[in-house]
Amino acid sequence: MNDEATVFVPGHITGFFTISEDDDPTKAGSQGAGLALSDGVTVTVQAADERAIYLDDTSIEVEAVERVLDALAADVLVDAESALPLGAGFGVSGALALGAALATNQVLDRGLSENELITIAHGAEVQAGTGLGDVVAQAKGGIPIRLEPGGPQHNVVDAVPSRVRVEYLHFDELSTESVLEESGELLNDAGEKALSLLVREPTLSSFIYASRGFAREAELLTPQVGEVIDDVSAADGQASMAMLGETVFALGTGLSDAGYDPEHCNTYPAGAVFK
Amino acid sequence: MNDEATVFVPGHITGFFTISEDDDPTKAGSQGAGLALSDGVTVTVQAADERAIYLDDTSIEVEAVERVLDALAADVLVDAESALPLGAGFGVSGALALGAALATNQVLDRGLSENELITIAHGAEVQAGTGLGDVVAQAKGGIPIRLEPGGPQHNVVDAVPSRVRVEYLHFDELSTESVLEESGELLNDAGEKALSLLVREPTLSSFIYASRGFAREAELLTPQVGEVIDDVSAADGQASMAMLGETVFALGTGLSDAGYDPEHCNTYPAGAVFK
Repeated sequence: MNDEATVFVPGHITGFFTISEDDDPTKAGSQGAGLALSDGVTVTVQAADERAIYLDDTSIEVEAVERVLDALAADVLVDAESALPLGAGFGVSGALALGAALATNQVLDRGLSENELITIAHGAEVQAGTGLGDVVAQAKGGIPIRLEPGGPQHNVVDAVPSRVRVEYLHFDELSTESVLEESGELLNDAGEKALSLLVREPTLSSFIYASRGFAREAELLTPQVGEVIDDVSAADGQASMAMLGETVFALGTGLSDAGYDPEHCNTYPAGAVFK
Repeated sequence: MNDEATVFVPGHITGFFTISEDDDPTKAGSQGAGLALSDGVTVTVQAADERAIYLDDTSIEVEAVERVLDALAADVLVDAESALPLGAGFGVSGALALGAALATNQVLDRGLSENELITIAHGAEVQAGTGLGDVVAQAKGGIPIRLEPGGPQHNVVDAVPSRVRVEYLHFDELSTESVLEESGELLNDAGEKALSLLVREPTLSSFIYASRGFAREAELLTPQVGEVIDDVSAADGQASMAMLGETVFALGTGLSDAGYDPEHCNTYPAGAVFK
Protein backbone atom coordinates (compact mmCIF):
# COMPACT_ATOMS: atom_id res chain seq x y z
CA MET A 1 0.00 0.00 0.00
CA ASN A 2 1.21 3.50 -0.83
CA ASP A 3 0.51 6.37 1.57
CA GLU A 4 -0.62 8.66 -1.18
CA ALA A 5 -0.82 9.02 -4.95
CA THR A 6 -1.17 12.10 -7.13
CA VAL A 7 -2.65 12.24 -10.62
CA PHE A 8 -2.84 15.20 -13.01
CA VAL A 9 -5.95 15.17 -15.19
CA PRO A 10 -6.10 17.57 -18.15
CA GLY A 11 -9.08 19.90 -18.41
CA HIS A 12 -11.34 19.25 -21.39
CA ILE A 13 -13.23 21.71 -23.55
CA THR A 14 -16.00 20.07 -25.57
CA GLY A 15 -16.53 21.70 -28.98
CA PHE A 16 -19.60 19.71 -29.94
CA PHE A 17 -21.41 16.59 -28.80
CA THR A 18 -24.42 14.31 -29.07
CA ILE A 19 -26.31 12.63 -26.25
CA SER A 20 -26.63 8.83 -26.13
CA GLU A 21 -28.85 7.58 -23.37
CA ASP A 22 -28.66 4.01 -22.11
CA ASP A 23 -29.72 2.27 -18.92
CA ASP A 24 -26.19 0.93 -18.68
CA PRO A 25 -24.00 3.92 -17.71
CA THR A 26 -20.94 2.28 -19.32
CA LYS A 27 -22.81 2.39 -22.66
CA ALA A 28 -24.40 5.82 -22.19
CA GLY A 29 -22.38 8.90 -23.04
CA SER A 30 -21.80 11.06 -26.07
CA GLN A 31 -20.07 11.40 -29.39
CA GLY A 32 -18.19 14.60 -30.07
CA ALA A 33 -14.81 16.26 -30.03
CA GLY A 34 -12.80 18.57 -27.85
CA LEU A 35 -9.46 19.74 -26.57
CA ALA A 36 -7.62 18.19 -23.61
CA LEU A 37 -5.86 21.07 -21.83
CA SER A 38 -2.51 21.51 -20.09
CA ASP A 39 -4.53 23.45 -17.49
CA GLY A 40 -6.24 20.81 -15.42
CA VAL A 41 -6.81 19.29 -12.02
CA THR A 42 -4.23 17.70 -9.73
CA VAL A 43 -5.82 15.08 -7.49
CA THR A 44 -4.04 13.65 -4.47
CA VAL A 45 -5.52 10.72 -2.59
CA GLN A 46 -4.41 9.66 0.89
CA ALA A 47 -5.47 6.67 2.92
CA ALA A 48 -7.80 7.88 5.68
CA ASP A 49 -10.35 6.58 8.18
CA GLU A 50 -13.09 8.86 6.92
CA ARG A 51 -13.99 10.07 3.48
CA ALA A 52 -13.41 13.75 2.65
CA ILE A 53 -13.12 15.72 -0.60
CA TYR A 54 -11.40 19.07 -0.92
CA LEU A 55 -11.12 21.31 -3.98
CA ASP A 56 -8.65 24.16 -3.59
CA ASP A 57 -8.68 23.71 0.18
CA THR A 58 -12.47 23.92 0.41
CA SER A 59 -14.56 20.93 1.42
CA ILE A 60 -16.98 20.04 -1.39
CA GLU A 61 -19.48 17.39 -2.33
CA VAL A 62 -19.09 15.96 -5.83
CA GLU A 63 -21.53 13.17 -6.60
CA ALA A 64 -19.32 11.68 -9.33
CA VAL A 65 -16.40 11.37 -6.89
CA GLU A 66 -18.63 9.87 -4.20
CA ARG A 67 -19.79 7.28 -6.71
CA VAL A 68 -16.19 6.45 -7.69
CA LEU A 69 -15.22 5.99 -4.04
CA ASP A 70 -18.33 3.84 -3.48
CA ALA A 71 -17.35 1.64 -6.43
CA LEU A 72 -13.85 1.23 -5.01
CA ALA A 73 -15.18 0.76 -1.45
CA ALA A 74 -12.77 3.47 -0.45
CA ASP A 75 -12.68 5.83 2.51
CA VAL A 76 -9.89 8.16 1.51
CA LEU A 77 -8.97 11.83 1.60
CA VAL A 78 -9.25 13.40 -1.87
CA ASP A 79 -7.40 16.69 -2.10
CA ALA A 80 -7.63 18.44 -5.49
CA GLU A 81 -6.21 21.63 -6.91
CA SER A 82 -7.72 23.05 -10.07
CA ALA A 83 -6.38 25.61 -12.52
CA LEU A 84 -9.89 25.77 -13.99
CA PRO A 85 -13.29 26.87 -12.66
CA LEU A 86 -15.99 24.29 -11.83
CA GLY A 87 -19.18 24.40 -13.93
CA ALA A 88 -17.63 26.40 -16.77
CA GLY A 89 -17.26 23.72 -19.44
CA PHE A 90 -13.74 22.54 -18.57
CA GLY A 91 -14.56 19.05 -17.36
CA VAL A 92 -13.50 19.68 -13.76
CA SER A 93 -16.00 17.20 -12.33
CA GLY A 94 -14.81 14.55 -14.81
CA ALA A 95 -11.23 15.29 -13.83
CA LEU A 96 -12.05 14.87 -10.15
CA ALA A 97 -13.79 11.55 -10.82
CA LEU A 98 -11.01 10.17 -13.04
CA GLY A 99 -8.19 11.42 -10.83
CA ALA A 100 -9.87 9.98 -7.73
CA ALA A 101 -10.33 6.60 -9.45
CA LEU A 102 -6.70 6.31 -10.63
CA ALA A 103 -5.14 7.58 -7.41
CA THR A 104 -7.38 5.55 -5.09
CA ASN A 105 -6.63 2.36 -7.03
CA GLN A 106 -2.92 3.02 -6.43
CA VAL A 107 -3.18 3.97 -2.77
CA LEU A 108 -5.43 1.05 -1.80
CA ASP A 109 -3.83 -1.49 -4.17
CA ARG A 110 -7.17 -2.26 -5.78
CA GLY A 111 -5.45 -3.90 -8.75
CA LEU A 112 -7.78 -2.57 -11.47
CA SER A 113 -6.70 -1.79 -15.01
CA GLU A 114 -6.72 1.65 -16.61
CA ASN A 115 -9.83 0.83 -18.66
CA GLU A 116 -11.65 -0.47 -15.59
CA LEU A 117 -10.89 2.76 -13.72
CA ILE A 118 -11.95 4.93 -16.67
CA THR A 119 -15.17 2.91 -16.84
CA ILE A 120 -15.87 3.54 -13.16
CA ALA A 121 -15.22 7.28 -13.49
CA HIS A 122 -17.24 7.57 -16.72
CA GLY A 123 -20.18 5.68 -15.24
CA ALA A 124 -20.06 7.83 -12.10
CA GLU A 125 -20.17 11.06 -14.15
CA VAL A 126 -23.04 9.79 -16.28
CA GLN A 127 -25.05 8.70 -13.24
CA ALA A 128 -24.37 12.00 -11.47
CA GLY A 129 -25.62 13.80 -14.60
CA THR A 130 -22.56 16.06 -14.69
CA GLY A 131 -20.90 14.86 -17.89
CA LEU A 132 -21.15 12.44 -20.78
CA GLY A 133 -17.80 12.42 -22.56
CA ASP A 134 -15.25 14.36 -20.52
CA VAL A 135 -13.82 11.39 -18.64
CA VAL A 136 -13.10 9.40 -21.81
CA ALA A 137 -11.51 12.46 -23.44
CA GLN A 138 -9.47 13.25 -20.34
CA ALA A 139 -8.16 9.69 -20.24
CA LYS A 140 -7.06 9.97 -23.87
CA GLY A 141 -5.52 13.46 -24.04
CA GLY A 142 -4.76 15.49 -27.16
CA ILE A 143 -7.67 16.46 -29.39
CA PRO A 144 -9.99 13.47 -28.99
CA ILE A 145 -12.79 12.63 -31.38
CA ARG A 146 -15.39 10.43 -29.70
CA LEU A 147 -16.78 8.43 -32.61
CA GLU A 148 -18.93 6.14 -30.50
CA PRO A 149 -20.25 6.82 -26.98
CA GLY A 150 -19.65 5.04 -23.70
CA GLY A 151 -16.77 3.80 -21.60
CA PRO A 152 -13.66 2.04 -22.97
CA GLN A 153 -15.41 -1.31 -23.50
CA HIS A 154 -17.96 0.23 -25.84
CA ASN A 155 -16.64 3.48 -27.28
CA VAL A 156 -14.52 4.24 -30.35
CA VAL A 157 -12.09 7.13 -30.04
CA ASP A 158 -9.90 8.78 -32.67
CA ALA A 159 -8.06 12.13 -32.56
CA VAL A 160 -6.97 15.13 -34.58
CA PRO A 161 -3.20 14.59 -34.91
CA SER A 162 -2.00 18.03 -33.80
CA ARG A 163 -1.14 20.26 -30.87
CA VAL A 164 -2.09 23.88 -30.38
CA ARG A 165 -2.12 26.85 -28.02
CA VAL A 166 -5.57 27.44 -26.56
CA GLU A 167 -6.94 30.72 -25.20
CA TYR A 168 -10.11 30.91 -23.13
CA LEU A 169 -12.34 33.46 -21.46
CA HIS A 170 -14.92 32.49 -18.88
CA PHE A 171 -18.01 34.53 -17.97
CA ASP A 172 -20.53 32.58 -15.92
CA GLU A 173 -21.72 29.17 -14.88
CA LEU A 174 -24.08 26.99 -16.88
CA SER A 175 -25.46 23.83 -15.30
CA THR A 176 -24.62 20.81 -17.46
CA GLU A 177 -27.48 18.95 -15.84
CA SER A 178 -30.19 21.48 -16.75
CA VAL A 179 -28.97 21.96 -20.33
CA LEU A 180 -28.84 18.21 -20.85
CA GLU A 181 -32.40 17.92 -19.54
CA GLU A 182 -33.76 20.56 -21.88
CA SER A 183 -31.89 19.54 -25.00
CA GLY A 184 -33.29 17.18 -27.57
CA GLU A 185 -33.27 16.26 -31.21
CA LEU A 186 -31.92 19.65 -32.29
CA LEU A 187 -28.73 19.04 -30.30
CA ASN A 188 -28.19 15.51 -31.60
CA ASP A 189 -28.77 16.54 -35.22
CA ALA A 190 -26.29 19.40 -34.88
CA GLY A 191 -23.80 17.16 -33.10
CA GLU A 192 -23.95 14.44 -35.75
CA LYS A 193 -23.49 16.99 -38.51
CA ALA A 194 -20.45 18.47 -36.75
CA LEU A 195 -18.96 15.01 -36.20
CA SER A 196 -19.33 14.04 -39.83
CA LEU A 197 -17.62 17.29 -40.89
CA LEU A 198 -14.69 16.59 -38.59
CA VAL A 199 -14.40 12.94 -39.58
CA ARG A 200 -14.21 13.97 -43.24
CA GLU A 201 -11.28 16.28 -42.45
CA PRO A 202 -9.81 15.72 -38.98
CA THR A 203 -7.91 19.00 -38.67
CA LEU A 204 -7.94 21.85 -36.15
CA SER A 205 -9.71 24.23 -38.51
CA SER A 206 -12.45 21.69 -39.21
CA PHE A 207 -12.80 21.16 -35.47
CA ILE A 208 -13.37 24.81 -34.66
CA TYR A 209 -15.58 25.35 -37.71
CA ALA A 210 -17.73 22.34 -36.82
CA SER A 211 -17.89 23.46 -33.17
CA ARG A 212 -19.09 26.95 -34.09
CA GLY A 213 -21.75 25.51 -36.38
CA PHE A 214 -22.88 23.19 -33.60
CA ALA A 215 -23.17 25.98 -31.01
CA ARG A 216 -25.42 27.92 -33.38
CA GLU A 217 -27.53 25.05 -34.69
CA ALA A 218 -28.08 23.49 -31.28
CA GLU A 219 -29.13 26.98 -30.09
CA LEU A 220 -26.68 26.88 -27.21
CA LEU A 221 -24.81 30.04 -28.17
CA THR A 222 -25.45 32.79 -25.63
CA PRO A 223 -25.45 36.45 -26.79
CA GLN A 224 -22.30 37.30 -24.81
CA VAL A 225 -20.37 34.31 -26.14
CA GLY A 226 -21.61 34.94 -29.68
CA GLU A 227 -20.35 38.51 -29.56
CA VAL A 228 -16.86 37.47 -28.51
CA ILE A 229 -16.71 34.79 -31.21
CA ASP A 230 -17.66 37.42 -33.79
CA ASP A 231 -14.90 39.71 -32.49
CA VAL A 232 -12.36 36.90 -32.84
CA SER A 233 -13.57 36.17 -36.40
CA ALA A 234 -13.27 39.87 -37.26
CA ALA A 235 -9.63 39.70 -36.18
CA ASP A 236 -9.14 36.66 -38.48
CA GLY A 237 -9.13 34.24 -35.57
CA GLN A 238 -11.06 31.08 -34.77
CA ALA A 239 -13.16 30.68 -31.65
CA SER A 240 -16.15 28.77 -30.35
CA MET A 241 -18.08 28.08 -27.15
CA ALA A 242 -17.01 25.52 -24.54
CA MET A 243 -19.84 23.03 -24.00
CA LEU A 244 -21.32 23.55 -21.49
CA GLY A 245 -20.18 26.82 -20.01
CA GLU A 246 -20.43 30.53 -20.60
CA THR A 247 -16.91 30.23 -21.95
CA VAL A 248 -15.23 31.14 -25.25
CA PHE A 249 -12.14 29.29 -26.44
CA ALA A 250 -9.89 30.16 -29.36
CA LEU A 251 -7.01 28.50 -31.15
CA GLY A 252 -3.60 30.16 -31.10
CA THR A 253 -3.84 33.84 -30.16
CA GLY A 254 -7.41 34.35 -31.40
CA LEU A 255 -8.74 36.07 -28.28
CA SER A 256 -5.67 38.23 -27.61
CA ASP A 257 -5.60 39.32 -31.24
CA ALA A 258 -9.19 40.48 -30.83
CA GLY A 259 -8.19 42.64 -27.87
CA TYR A 260 -9.29 40.36 -25.01
CA ASP A 261 -7.18 39.36 -22.03
CA PRO A 262 -7.73 35.58 -21.95
CA GLU A 263 -6.22 32.76 -19.96
CA HIS A 264 -4.06 30.51 -22.11
CA CYS A 265 -2.60 27.02 -22.12
CA ASN A 266 -1.97 24.28 -24.70
CA THR A 267 -3.58 21.04 -25.72
CA TYR A 268 -2.18 18.33 -23.44
CA PRO A 269 -0.94 15.33 -25.40
CA ALA A 270 -1.37 12.75 -22.63
CA GLY A 271 -4.42 11.55 -20.77
CA ALA A 272 -4.46 11.54 -16.97
CA VAL A 273 -0.91 10.97 -15.67
CA PHE A 274 0.55 9.87 -12.37
CA LYS A 275 2.90 12.41 -10.85
CA MET B 1 1.33 23.66 -45.74
CA ASN B 2 3.88 23.77 -42.93
CA ASP B 3 7.59 23.82 -43.72
CA GLU B 4 8.39 21.17 -41.14
CA ALA B 5 6.91 19.22 -38.26
CA THR B 6 8.59 17.42 -35.37
CA VAL B 7 7.18 14.50 -33.41
CA PHE B 8 8.62 12.75 -30.35
CA VAL B 9 7.83 9.04 -30.23
CA PRO B 10 8.53 7.15 -26.99
CA GLY B 11 10.69 4.06 -27.14
CA HIS B 12 8.91 0.81 -26.28
CA ILE B 13 10.19 -2.23 -24.44
CA THR B 14 8.04 -5.30 -25.00
CA GLY B 15 7.90 -7.59 -21.97
CA PHE B 16 5.95 -10.41 -23.63
CA PHE B 17 3.94 -10.97 -26.79
CA THR B 18 2.09 -13.34 -29.07
CA ILE B 19 2.14 -13.42 -32.86
CA SER B 20 -1.09 -13.04 -34.85
CA GLU B 21 -0.66 -13.52 -38.56
CA ASP B 22 -3.18 -12.18 -41.03
CA ASP B 23 -3.09 -11.36 -44.73
CA ASP B 24 -4.47 -7.93 -43.83
CA PRO B 25 -1.58 -6.07 -42.14
CA THR B 26 -4.05 -3.88 -40.23
CA LYS B 27 -5.40 -7.05 -38.56
CA ALA B 28 -2.03 -8.78 -38.12
CA GLY B 29 0.06 -7.92 -35.09
CA SER B 30 0.46 -9.14 -31.55
CA GLN B 31 -0.99 -9.21 -28.09
CA GLY B 32 1.31 -8.40 -25.22
CA ALA B 33 2.48 -5.71 -22.85
CA GLY B 34 5.37 -3.33 -22.47
CA LEU B 35 6.71 0.00 -21.29
CA ALA B 36 6.60 3.22 -23.34
CA LEU B 37 9.81 5.10 -22.50
CA SER B 38 10.73 8.75 -22.00
CA ASP B 39 13.84 7.86 -24.01
CA GLY B 40 12.69 7.76 -27.61
CA VAL B 41 13.04 9.07 -31.13
CA THR B 42 12.51 12.63 -32.32
CA VAL B 43 11.43 12.69 -35.96
CA THR B 44 11.47 15.87 -38.04
CA VAL B 45 9.93 15.92 -41.50
CA GLN B 46 10.58 18.67 -44.06
CA ALA B 47 9.03 19.17 -47.45
CA ALA B 48 11.62 18.20 -50.09
CA ASP B 49 11.90 17.31 -53.77
CA GLU B 50 13.53 13.96 -53.09
CA ARG B 51 13.01 11.41 -50.39
CA ALA B 52 15.79 10.93 -47.81
CA ILE B 53 15.92 9.38 -44.34
CA TYR B 54 18.56 10.19 -41.72
CA LEU B 55 19.01 8.66 -38.29
CA ASP B 56 21.46 10.54 -36.06
CA ASP B 57 22.88 12.32 -39.12
CA THR B 58 23.51 9.08 -41.01
CA SER B 59 21.57 8.21 -44.16
CA ILE B 60 19.67 4.95 -43.61
CA GLU B 61 17.12 2.77 -45.32
CA VAL B 62 14.18 1.74 -43.16
CA GLU B 63 11.59 -0.29 -45.03
CA ALA B 64 8.79 0.61 -42.61
CA VAL B 65 9.42 4.33 -43.18
CA GLU B 66 9.58 3.86 -46.95
CA ARG B 67 6.22 2.11 -46.82
CA VAL B 68 4.73 4.94 -44.74
CA LEU B 69 5.97 7.54 -47.22
CA ASP B 70 4.63 5.43 -50.12
CA ALA B 71 1.22 5.29 -48.45
CA LEU B 72 1.23 9.07 -48.04
CA ALA B 73 2.64 9.63 -51.57
CA ALA B 74 5.29 11.75 -49.90
CA ASP B 75 8.74 12.80 -50.99
CA VAL B 76 10.05 14.39 -47.83
CA LEU B 77 13.21 14.65 -45.77
CA VAL B 78 12.96 12.56 -42.59
CA ASP B 79 15.56 13.53 -40.02
CA ALA B 80 15.49 11.48 -36.80
CA GLU B 81 17.47 11.56 -33.58
CA SER B 82 17.31 8.56 -31.29
CA ALA B 83 18.27 8.20 -27.65
CA LEU B 84 18.01 4.42 -28.15
CA PRO B 85 19.92 1.89 -30.26
CA LEU B 86 18.28 0.32 -33.34
CA GLY B 87 17.68 -3.44 -33.26
CA ALA B 88 17.93 -3.70 -29.49
CA GLY B 89 14.28 -4.19 -28.54
CA PHE B 90 13.35 -0.53 -28.03
CA GLY B 91 10.96 -0.12 -30.95
CA VAL B 92 13.13 2.37 -32.83
CA SER B 93 11.87 1.26 -36.25
CA GLY B 94 8.27 1.57 -35.04
CA ALA B 95 9.05 5.03 -33.70
CA LEU B 96 10.52 6.07 -37.05
CA ALA B 97 7.46 4.79 -38.91
CA LEU B 98 4.94 6.41 -36.55
CA GLY B 99 6.85 9.69 -36.29
CA ALA B 100 7.22 9.87 -40.07
CA ALA B 101 3.49 9.24 -40.55
CA LEU B 102 2.34 11.91 -38.07
CA ALA B 103 4.86 14.56 -39.14
CA THR B 104 4.39 13.99 -42.89
CA ASN B 105 0.61 14.28 -42.55
CA GLN B 106 1.14 17.67 -40.91
CA VAL B 107 3.75 18.97 -43.36
CA LEU B 108 1.86 17.93 -46.49
CA ASP B 109 -1.64 18.67 -45.11
CA ARG B 110 -2.78 15.12 -45.85
CA GLY B 111 -5.77 15.53 -43.54
CA LEU B 112 -5.71 12.02 -42.04
CA SER B 113 -6.83 11.21 -38.50
CA GLU B 114 -4.59 9.90 -35.74
CA ASN B 115 -6.01 6.37 -36.06
CA GLU B 116 -5.50 6.41 -39.83
CA LEU B 117 -1.86 7.41 -39.38
CA ILE B 118 -1.29 4.78 -36.68
CA THR B 119 -2.85 2.21 -39.02
CA ILE B 120 -0.47 3.18 -41.83
CA ALA B 121 2.58 2.99 -39.55
CA HIS B 122 1.46 -0.29 -37.98
CA GLY B 123 0.80 -1.89 -41.36
CA ALA B 124 4.16 -0.69 -42.65
CA GLU B 125 6.00 -2.24 -39.70
CA VAL B 126 4.14 -5.53 -40.06
CA GLN B 127 4.82 -5.70 -43.79
CA ALA B 128 8.49 -4.83 -43.28
CA GLY B 129 8.67 -7.66 -40.72
CA THR B 130 10.33 -5.38 -38.15
CA GLY B 131 7.60 -5.22 -35.51
CA LEU B 132 4.12 -6.36 -34.56
CA GLY B 133 2.96 -4.25 -31.65
CA ASP B 134 5.40 -1.41 -31.05
CA VAL B 135 3.57 1.20 -33.14
CA VAL B 136 0.26 0.68 -31.33
CA ALA B 137 2.01 0.82 -27.96
CA GLN B 138 4.01 3.91 -28.93
CA ALA B 139 0.82 5.67 -30.03
CA LYS B 140 -0.76 4.92 -26.65
CA GLY B 141 2.07 5.62 -24.18
CA GLY B 142 2.28 4.51 -20.55
CA ILE B 143 2.32 0.80 -19.81
CA PRO B 144 0.11 -0.56 -22.61
CA ILE B 145 -1.52 -3.97 -22.54
CA ARG B 146 -2.40 -5.10 -26.05
CA LEU B 147 -5.43 -7.34 -25.45
CA GLU B 148 -6.22 -7.88 -29.12
CA PRO B 149 -3.82 -7.53 -32.08
CA GLY B 150 -3.85 -5.21 -35.07
CA GLY B 151 -4.19 -1.52 -35.82
CA PRO B 152 -6.66 0.84 -34.12
CA GLN B 153 -9.68 -0.39 -36.10
CA HIS B 154 -9.23 -3.93 -34.86
CA ASN B 155 -7.20 -3.97 -31.67
CA VAL B 156 -8.19 -3.65 -28.01
CA VAL B 157 -5.74 -1.86 -25.74
CA ASP B 158 -5.75 -1.40 -21.98
CA ALA B 159 -2.94 -0.31 -19.64
CA VAL B 160 -1.38 -0.76 -16.22
CA PRO B 161 -2.36 2.46 -14.41
CA SER B 162 1.05 3.47 -13.09
CA ARG B 163 4.34 5.21 -13.84
CA VAL B 164 7.83 4.00 -12.98
CA ARG B 165 11.56 4.59 -13.41
CA VAL B 166 13.07 2.15 -15.89
CA GLU B 167 16.72 1.05 -16.07
CA TYR B 168 18.15 -0.80 -19.03
CA LEU B 169 21.38 -2.40 -20.18
CA HIS B 170 22.01 -3.32 -23.79
CA PHE B 171 24.50 -5.92 -25.02
CA ASP B 172 24.02 -6.87 -28.65
CA GLU B 173 21.63 -6.88 -31.58
CA LEU B 174 18.98 -9.50 -32.21
CA SER B 175 17.10 -9.49 -35.52
CA THR B 176 13.37 -9.26 -34.88
CA GLU B 177 12.77 -10.72 -38.31
CA SER B 178 14.78 -13.93 -37.75
CA VAL B 179 13.38 -14.55 -34.28
CA LEU B 180 9.84 -14.09 -35.54
CA GLU B 181 10.51 -16.53 -38.36
CA GLU B 182 11.82 -19.23 -36.03
CA SER B 183 9.27 -18.84 -33.30
CA GLY B 184 6.12 -20.87 -33.10
CA GLU B 185 3.57 -22.38 -30.79
CA LEU B 186 5.90 -22.22 -27.79
CA LEU B 187 6.01 -18.44 -28.04
CA ASN B 188 2.26 -18.00 -28.42
CA ASP B 189 1.48 -20.34 -25.52
CA ALA B 190 3.92 -18.48 -23.29
CA GLY B 191 2.58 -15.10 -24.48
CA GLU B 192 -1.03 -16.00 -23.79
CA LYS B 193 -0.17 -17.30 -20.34
CA ALA B 194 1.70 -14.08 -19.53
CA LEU B 195 -1.20 -11.95 -20.80
CA SER B 196 -3.75 -13.78 -18.70
CA LEU B 197 -1.55 -13.33 -15.62
CA LEU B 198 -1.34 -9.58 -16.25
CA VAL B 199 -5.04 -9.20 -17.03
CA ARG B 200 -5.90 -10.88 -13.73
CA GLU B 201 -3.76 -8.33 -11.88
CA PRO B 202 -2.73 -5.35 -14.01
CA THR B 203 0.12 -4.09 -11.82
CA LEU B 204 3.81 -3.42 -12.41
CA SER B 205 4.91 -6.42 -10.41
CA SER B 206 2.61 -8.73 -12.36
CA PHE B 207 3.97 -7.23 -15.58
CA ILE B 208 7.59 -7.94 -14.79
CA TYR B 209 6.81 -11.37 -13.30
CA ALA B 210 4.79 -12.35 -16.39
CA SER B 211 7.53 -11.00 -18.67
CA ARG B 212 10.24 -13.04 -16.95
CA GLY B 213 8.15 -16.19 -17.18
CA PHE B 214 7.53 -15.52 -20.87
CA ALA B 215 11.23 -15.04 -21.67
CA ARG B 216 12.00 -18.40 -20.08
CA GLU B 217 9.05 -20.37 -21.42
CA ALA B 218 9.38 -19.04 -24.96
CA GLU B 219 13.09 -19.98 -24.75
CA LEU B 220 14.17 -16.49 -25.76
CA LEU B 221 16.29 -15.83 -22.68
CA THR B 222 19.97 -15.65 -23.63
CA PRO B 223 22.60 -16.78 -21.08
CA GLN B 224 24.01 -13.27 -20.69
CA VAL B 225 20.59 -11.69 -20.13
CA GLY B 226 19.57 -14.52 -17.79
CA GLU B 227 22.62 -13.93 -15.63
CA VAL B 228 21.91 -10.22 -15.22
CA ILE B 229 18.26 -10.89 -14.37
CA ASP B 230 19.40 -13.33 -11.66
CA ASP B 231 21.78 -10.70 -10.28
CA VAL B 232 18.93 -8.19 -10.07
CA SER B 233 16.70 -10.75 -8.34
CA ALA B 234 19.49 -11.52 -5.86
CA ALA B 235 19.53 -7.80 -4.99
CA ASP B 236 15.73 -7.95 -4.42
CA GLY B 237 15.02 -6.20 -7.73
CA GLN B 238 12.78 -7.00 -10.70
CA ALA B 239 14.15 -7.34 -14.23
CA SER B 240 13.37 -9.05 -17.51
CA MET B 241 14.46 -9.16 -21.15
CA ALA B 242 13.39 -6.61 -23.77
CA MET B 243 11.70 -8.41 -26.68
CA LEU B 244 13.51 -8.67 -29.02
CA GLY B 245 16.97 -7.51 -28.09
CA GLU B 246 19.94 -8.61 -26.05
CA THR B 247 18.72 -6.07 -23.49
CA VAL B 248 17.80 -6.29 -19.81
CA PHE B 249 15.36 -3.83 -18.27
CA ALA B 250 14.51 -3.34 -14.62
CA LEU B 251 11.93 -1.39 -12.66
CA GLY B 252 13.11 1.34 -10.29
CA THR B 253 16.78 0.97 -9.44
CA GLY B 254 16.96 -2.80 -9.98
CA LEU B 255 20.06 -2.80 -12.17
CA SER B 256 22.00 -0.17 -10.20
CA ASP B 257 21.20 -1.94 -6.92
CA ALA B 258 22.75 -5.09 -8.43
CA GLY B 259 25.97 -3.18 -9.17
CA TYR B 260 25.45 -2.48 -12.88
CA ASP B 261 25.79 0.88 -14.58
CA PRO B 262 22.59 1.07 -16.64
CA GLU B 263 20.93 3.77 -18.71
CA HIS B 264 17.74 5.03 -17.09
CA CYS B 265 14.56 6.85 -17.99
CA ASN B 266 10.88 6.67 -17.01
CA THR B 267 7.72 5.32 -18.51
CA TYR B 268 6.31 8.03 -20.80
CA PRO B 269 2.64 8.71 -20.11
CA ALA B 270 1.76 10.01 -23.58
CA GLY B 271 1.87 8.40 -26.98
CA ALA B 272 3.69 10.10 -29.86
CA VAL B 273 3.49 13.89 -29.39
CA PHE B 274 3.97 16.88 -31.66
CA LYS B 275 6.72 19.20 -30.49
